[in-house]
Amino acid sequence: MRARPRFPVEPWQVREPDLDPDWLAEAESTFALSNGHIGLRGNLDEGDPSGMPGTYLNSFHEEYDLDYPESGYAFPERGQTVVNAPNGKLVRLFVDDEPFDVRTGTLRHHQRILDLRAGTLCRTVEWVSPAGTAIRLRSTRLVSLTRPAVAAVDYEVTAVDRPVRLRIESDLLADEDMPRRADDPRAATTLTAPLTAVRHRAGRTGGLLLHRTRRSRLPVASVVDHAVTGPDGVTCATTARPDRVRTTVTADLSPGATVRIRKLLGYAWATTAAADAEPLDALCAEATAAVDDARAAGWDALVAEQRARLDDFWDVADVELEGDPEVQQAVRFDLFHVLQSGARAGVAPIPAKGLTGNGYDGHVLWDTESFVLPVLTYTCPEAVRGALRWRHANLPVARDRARELRLAGAAFPWRTIAGSECSGYWPAGTAALHINADIADAVLRYVGATGDEEFYRGPGLDLLVETARLWRYVGRYDDEGGFHLDGVTGPDEYTAVVDDNLFTNVMARRNLRAAADAADRHPDRAAELGVDRHETAAWRAAAAAMHLPYDDKRGVHQQAAGFTRLAEWDFAGTDADDYPLLLHFPYFELYRKQVVKQADVVLAMLCCGESFSPAEKARNFAYYEQRTVRDSSLSASSQAVLAAEVGHLELAHDYLAESALQDLRNLGDKTGDGLHVASLAGAWTALVMGFGGLRDHDGTLSFAPRLPSHLPALRFSVAWRGLRLRVAVTAGTDGTSAGSVTYRVDGGGPDASVDLCHHGEPLTVSAARPVTRPVPPPAGPGAEPPAPPGRAPTRRRDVLDHLLAADRGD
Amino acid sequence: MRARPRFPVEPWQVREPDLDPDWLAEAESTFALSNGHIGLRGNLDEGDPSGMPGTYLNSFHEEYDLDYPESGYAFPERGQTVVNAPNGKLVRLFVDDEPFDVRTGTLRHHQRILDLRAGTLCRTVEWVSPAGTAIRLRSTRLVSLTRPAVAAVDYEVTAVDRPVRLRIESDLLADEDMPRRADDPRAATTLTAPLTAVRHRAGRTGGLLLHRTRRSRLPVASVVDHAVTGPDGVTCATTARPDRVRTTVTADLSPGATVRIRKLLGYAWATTAAADAEPLDALCAEATAAVDDARAAGWDALVAEQRARLDDFWDVADVELEGDPEVQQAVRFDLFHVLQSGARAGVAPIPAKGLTGNGYDGHVLWDTESFVLPVLTYTCPEAVRGALRWRHANLPVARDRARELRLAGAAFPWRTIAGSECSGYWPAGTAALHINADIADAVLRYVGATGDEEFYRGPGLDLLVETARLWRYVGRYDDEGGFHLDGVTGPDEYTAVVDDNLFTNVMARRNLRAAADAADRHPDRAAELGVDRHETAAWRAAAAAMHLPYDDKRGVHQQAAGFTRLAEWDFAGTDADDYPLLLHFPYFELYRKQVVKQADVVLAMLCCGESFSPAEKARNFAYYEQRTVRDSSLSASSQAVLAAEVGHLELAHDYLAESALQDLRNLGDKTGDGLHVASLAGAWTALVMGFGGLRDHDGTLSFAPRLPSHLPALRFSVAWRGLRLRVAVTAGTDGTSAGSVTYRVDGGGPDASVDLCHHGEPLTVSAARPVTRPVPPPAGPGAEPPAPPGRAPTRRRDVLDHLLAADRGD
Repeated sequence: MRARPRFPVEPWQVREPDLDPDWLAEAESTFALSNGHIGLRGNLDEGDPSGMPGTYLNSFHEEYDLDYPESGYAFPERGQTVVNAPNGKLVRLFVDDEPFDVRTGTLRHHQRILDLRAGTLCRTVEWVSPAGTAIRLRSTRLVSLTRPAVAAVDYEVTAVDRPVRLRIESDLLADEDMPRRADDPRAATTLTAPLTAVRHRAGRTGGLLLHRTRRSRLPVASVVDHAVTGPDGVTCATTARPDRVRTTVTADLSPGATVRIRKLLGYAWATTAAADAEPLDALCAEATAAVDDARAAGWDALVAEQRARLDDFWDVADVELEGDPEVQQAVRFDLFHVLQSGARAGVAPIPAKGLTGNGYDGHVLWDTESFVLPVLTYTCPEAVRGALRWRHANLPVARDRARELRLAGAAFPWRTIAGSECSGYWPAGTAALHINADIADAVLRYVGATGDEEFYRGPGLDLLVETARLWRYVGRYDDEGGFHLDGVTGPDEYTAVVDDNLFTNVMARRNLRAAADAADRHPDRAAELGVDRHETAAWRAAAAAMHLPYDDKRGVHQQAAGFTRLAEWDFAGTDADDYPLLLHFPYFELYRKQVVKQADVVLAMLCCGESFSPAEKARNFAYYEQRTVRDSSLSASSQAVLAAEVGHLELAHDYLAESALQDLRNLGDKTGDGLHVASLAGAWTALVMGFGGLRDHDGTLSFAPRLPSHLPALRFSVAWRGLRLRVAVTAGTDGTSAGSVTYRVDGGGPDASVDLCHHGEPLTVSAARPVTRPVPPPAGPGAEPPAPPGRAPTRRRDVLDHLLAADRGD
Repeated sequence: MRARPRFPVEPWQVREPDLDPDWLAEAESTFALSNGHIGLRGNLDEGDPSGMPGTYLNSFHEEYDLDYPESGYAFPERGQTVVNAPNGKLVRLFVDDEPFDVRTGTLRHHQRILDLRAGTLCRTVEWVSPAGTAIRLRSTRLVSLTRPAVAAVDYEVTAVDRPVRLRIESDLLADEDMPRRADDPRAATTLTAPLTAVRHRAGRTGGLLLHRTRRSRLPVASVVDHAVTGPDGVTCATTARPDRVRTTVTADLSPGATVRIRKLLGYAWATTAAADAEPLDALCAEATAAVDDARAAGWDALVAEQRARLDDFWDVADVELEGDPEVQQAVRFDLFHVLQSGARAGVAPIPAKGLTGNGYDGHVLWDTESFVLPVLTYTCPEAVRGALRWRHANLPVARDRARELRLAGAAFPWRTIAGSECSGYWPAGTAALHINADIADAVLRYVGATGDEEFYRGPGLDLLVETARLWRYVGRYDDEGGFHLDGVTGPDEYTAVVDDNLFTNVMARRNLRAAADAADRHPDRAAELGVDRHETAAWRAAAAAMHLPYDDKRGVHQQAAGFTRLAEWDFAGTDADDYPLLLHFPYFELYRKQVVKQADVVLAMLCCGESFSPAEKARNFAYYEQRTVRDSSLSASSQAVLAAEVGHLELAHDYLAESALQDLRNLGDKTGDGLHVASLAGAWTALVMGFGGLRDHDGTLSFAPRLPSHLPALRFSVAWRGLRLRVAVTAGTDGTSAGSVTYRVDGGGPDASVDLCHHGEPLTVSAARPVTRPVPPPAGPGAEPPAPPGRAPTRRRDVLDHLLAADRGD
C-alpha cells in the first residue's frame, strides 16, 4: 500500500487539508513564499509550533570562524551563514485571553493552500478554545513578485457562535529563538541572536526596527504597518522596543462579526557593511517608502499584480503533461518555487535552497548555473541576467581567490553567500573547479537564447575570459600533446581530487573555446583584459588537445582517469540503511571505488551531448546507471534526460517523477531544511530536455521529442530571442506511429521565426506557419540497464496503475 | 661567512657558553632531559624567562573536541594533547629580596652543559643583583634513566664578595601559565589550566599534589622533597595549596659560603581515567615511594647509576666518525635524545617529539616505527619491545577503528597519544594506512635482531596478522591479476589519496608475507586468531600479485600510479621564501604536481631494498632527487642512505649532516616546539645504514661499508641476538684502495658468532676471530643528481674546509 499523499493531487494548488505536527518543517518549506529578495517560510501566523522559523533576505548573512583541527594554506577562515531577519509574519491571537494555539482546544478545521497561479498562501482555521469559544480564522500571505521589498498578510478573524473578546498581537520580532540543528554535515550553522539593535520606532499602526548583524555589520531596516477594520470599538496601538515592534488590536465581536488586519512589511538591507549613519537612514527611508507605496496601492492591487506576474510566467513556463496528474501538479509546484527563487529583478544570487530554509547555510553552489539557470534561461531570461551579473560582481573576489590559490584568472567559490569561498572541506569544495565552467556555460546559454549582445560584450566576456584563464593555468600537456586537468573534483562527490574528470574536461573545453570566440568577436573589450592572439590561440589549442578519458576495453568513457579500473562497490553487502553512503562510509572507502553519488558522466552527456556519439551515450548511460546511487537530489533529472535520449522512456519517466516529487513528497527527508531548488528545476529539465529533447549545443536550438505510450501529450514553451516557441508533443496511439509534434511561434510579428532542429531535421517555424512533424520511430534501445540493487527509482507506471485502481475504488 | 655555531664543537657535551634571549625555546628543547617517562624541558630553574614551560609525563594528556567546518563519517571527534604536568623544576632565588632574573642586574657568566655521558644538565651562573650583590649559582638537573618515576635537581648558591641574605622558593606548581602558540598547523593545541586539584599535602621539606585532567580524568600524583645543607641558621619550611607546594629556604651567607638544596621529584600517573579513591591513593604512595627510595640512595648514587646506564648505552650505540667533528658531536647529541625518548622500561609510546616539547600535540606518529625503532633495535632492543607492546596494547582500539572505517583487521592511528585516531585531516592522516605496515616491519626487524620468539609468538603474531588483514581487505585484483592498493596516502604528504603508492605496496607486501610466515610458524596461536590456510594463502597470493607502479618510458618506479606523468613543479618560479611549500601553496597545487615533500620511493628502496635492482635504485634515486624538496625533517636521512648506496658518497655526507644537525643547529626553525626524534635517529641511520651499509632485509644482517675519502674512519656497533658486533671501517687512503673493514664480536663466549654479508660475501664472525675485508672499489655512480634549485643540502666538504681554515686562523 502506498500512503495517501500529504497533499491531494490538484492541478494548480498545493493543499494541506489538515495539520500534521510531524510535518511542520516540511510544510514550512513547501509553503515558503519568496520573491527572490525576501523569503518567508510557511510558519504558522502565531509562530508556534514551528519546525524552523525563517525570514530570509537575499545575501543578508553573518560571518563566523571556520576552525580546522588541522588547517592548511588557503583553507577559508571565515564562513558565511544566512541569518533570520526580523520576523514580520507573526500574528498572535488571543480569544477571551486564551492564546490561539493549534495544540490546545479543538481544531475543527485547518487547511492551507498554496495557490500557484495567485502566488498566495491561504490558511483557513476553525478553532474552539479550551473554554469553548469558537472562531474562524483566515489568513492570506503574499510576498510580492513585483515589489522586491514588500510582503503582506491579510488576517481575518470571525466569531462563530458566541460573543468573543479578541486581542491580536502582530509582531515584527528580531532575534527570535531558533532550535538547535541536527548533527549532519549538510545542516546549517545556527547562530544565536545574530542581530544587534540600532534603532526602533513606533507609530499608531506600525513601526520600524533597524538592526545590524553582529560581526558582518550588515544593516537591515524592517518596517511594519497595519490597516485594521472591524466593528465599533476596535482598538489599535503599537509599542516598540529594540527587538520588537508590536501592534495590538482588540475587538469585541458578536457572532458572525469579523475583524481584519492587513499587515504590510517592508525590508531594506545592505549586503556589505555600512558604518555611517547616512546609509542607515537611507535604508529606513527605503523600507518605509516600500510600505507606503504598497499601502497606497492597496491589498487588492497587490493581489492583482501578483496574479498578473504569474500569468505571464505560466504562459511561458507551464508544462502540461497528460497521463500523470501527480507529476503535473509537482512540476507546477516546482516551477513556482524556481520562479520564487530566481525570477526577480536585480543583481543577486540564487541559493541552493532559495530563500526557503537555512540548509547549506543558505549558500549558493553550482546548482544555480548548472540546474536552475538552464530552466530560467528559457522561461525567465531576465532572471539569468541578474544571477550572472551577481557572479560578475564577485569577479574581483574570484580573481583574488585564484591568486591566493596560486592559480591564474578567476577561481569562483564552491559555496558562498557574499562571494568568498566558504567551503570547509577542500577536496569537495575548492577542488571542484568545474564551477568556473558551469558559470561560463550559463553565460553562453543565456547569450544564445536571448541574443543579449550587450551582456555578452560586457560581463559575459569578462566571465568567459577569466574562467578560461584558470583552465589554461591548471592544465598540463602530456608528452603526446594531450591536455589534462589533474587533481580536480567533478560533480560526483563520491570521488574527489581526480585526474581528468570527464565532465570538467568537456565543460572546460567549451569554456576555453567560448572565451576565444568572445575575444575574437569583441577584440577591443578583450584587449582591455589583456587578451591577445597568443592567448586565444593557446585557449583553442588547449581545447583541441583536451583529453577525454576512455576505457577501450569496456567501451565507455571514464568518469575520471582510471575510474573504470577501481574496485566495484559491494552493493549486495550494503544495507538499505547504509544510504546515503556518505553518512555510513568514510570518504576513504567511497573515493576508491566505482560508486557514483550523482550523475557525472551522464551530466557531461547532457551538457555537452555533441561530444558523444549516440552509441557512446547508450554504453556510458548503461555503465554508470549501474553504479549511481543518487545520494544527491541533483542526479535524477540528468538521468531522466539521458534515459530519454538513449530510448529508455519508462526509466526517464521514473526519474522525472523522482526529481519532480523530491520536495512535494519529501523524498530525501531533507525538505524541512529548505527546498532543493535544483531538483525542482530538474522537473522542467526532465520533461523539456528529456521527453522534449531540447538541446542548445553551440547555440542551436534542437528538439528530439518522444513520449512513452502511456503519456499521451506534452506541451511546453521556450522563450527564445524575445519570442515564445510553443511545442506540443503527442505520443503514438498505436504500434505504427511514434507520435507527432507541432512547433508554433508566439509573441512576435507574423514574420517572426525560429530556426530549430527536429530530430536532426532543420526547420524554420514562423508565427504564421506552425510546423507539425512526425516523431521518428525509436531505435531499439535494448534492455533497460539496472540501477544498483535497492536503488532503482520507483517504477512510475506501477504507481499510476495503483492510483488508477484507487480512483476506480479497487 | 658562516655564523659561529651556538654550541661549540666538543665531542661529548653540548655547551651553551652564554644565554641568548632569542634562543630560549630552542635551548629548552636541546637541553631537555627525559627517561622516556618523565620529560623536563630545559627551562631555567627560576622559570622566567622561558620559551615554553614543559614538564611531560608519557601518555599523560587531555582530550578536546575536534570541530570541522564540514564534518564527515568517521572523522575523529576527540583529539588528545599532551599537557603540562606539575612543574617541579622551579627553584626561585631571592638575593637580599631581589629576585634572581637573568634579565636584570649583571650576568657575568651563564653557561649550561648537557653532558652526554653523565646524563645531566649543569648550569653555572655568576650574577650581580641590581643592588650590586654577586652570587654564584650551580644547578645540576637529572631525570633518572634507571628510576622511571624520579627526577632531581642539585641547586647550590654561593655568596661571592659580600654577605648576602638568600631566600629560595622551590616549587611544585600545577597549571602554570602557558604562552599562546603560533598559527601554524604543525603547532600544538594549547589547553589552559587542564588540571583540577584533588589533594595537596605538605611536610617540612616537601609535599604532594594530586591532580586530575579536567576532561580525560587522568590522575597524576607529584611528590617533592628537599635536602638542604648550608651554614647555621638556614631554615626550611613548606606550604601547600591546591596547585602548589612551596618549600622556602632562607640562609644568610658570608662571602664564599654556600647553601645547597637537593630536590627530588617523584611522579606517578595513570593513562586511563580512574574514578575511585583507591587508585589515587596508590598513585600517591607510588610517587612518594619513588622519592623515598631516591633519597635513601642519595644524590651520588643517582649520578652514578645514570653514568653506568649511559656507559652501557654508549658501548653499543656510539658511532665514531673521523673527519667531521661537528657531525661527531651531533650524532652523539642525537643518540642521547633517542635514548632519552625511547630507551626505557615498560609499555609506552615514543612520541614524535619525545618528551621535549608539545609540538604535534605530543602525538605518536609513524616516526616511531619507521625511524626511531630501527635505531633502537640495534642499540637498545628492550626499548623496542616496550614500544611495540604499546602498539599491541592498543590493538583493540585499532580493530574498532578498522570496523568504524568499514575495513577489516586493525587500522592503527596516524596520530595519537592514547591509541585512538586524532588526525583532523584524513587525506594525510587516516588514508596513510602504511602505518600498519610500518608497525609490522618494526616487529619483523625486532624479532630478527633479537630472536625474541616469545614476543614473536605473542604480541608479534597478533600485530602481524591484524595489520595484514587490513591490506587484504583494502586491496583489489585487476583483470590481469595484479593486486592494487587504491586511494591511500604514502610518506610524501605533497601527494595524498593516490593509487598504488610504491612505498605502501612494498611494505604491505612484506606485511602480508610476514603474517603468513608467522602463522605458519605458530599455527596454534594463529588459529586462536581465526587464521586458517585459506587466509595465509590469500595473503601470500596478494603479496605475490602486488603491483609496483613503473614508468617504462622514464625507466623509473612511480611514487604512485601516474605520478611521473603529473605536471612538473615550477621550481624556477618558486621563491626561497615559498618553502616549506605547504605554508604557501594549497594542497590542490601540491597534490597534482611532481613535487615530493620527503623521501617516499627513496624510503621504499631503503626499507625494501631487496625489491629493487642496483640500476633501478640509481635511476629512481636520480629521478626523485630532483623533485624532493625536503620540507620534512624525515627526509634527509633516507636520502643519505640511498645516496651512499648508489655511490654518491659526498651527497650522503651532506644529507647525513643535515639530519644530524637538524635540532642542534635548529635547521628547520622548529626545534623550539620540541626535538625531531626521527631526524635525530636518522643521524645513526645515515651513518650505519648509509656509510656502513647495514641492511636487514629478510632477517639477514648485511653490510656494504664505503666511506668518502675525506672521512678517514667510521666505527659502530650493532646489538645482534645478545651479542655486540663491532664494525670498524677505514676509507681508502690512496687512489688504489677503497679502504677496509673489520668485524668483531663482543659480549658472548668465544664461540659466539654472527653470520653476516659483507658486500655480498657471506661471513661468519666469532668473538675469537674478527674478520677484516677490503672494501670493493665503487662502481662509477655517474654524475651526482641535482636537488631542486635552491634545495640542495649544504655541501659538507665546503663546510669542513671552512672550519679547517678557521682553525688554521685563515
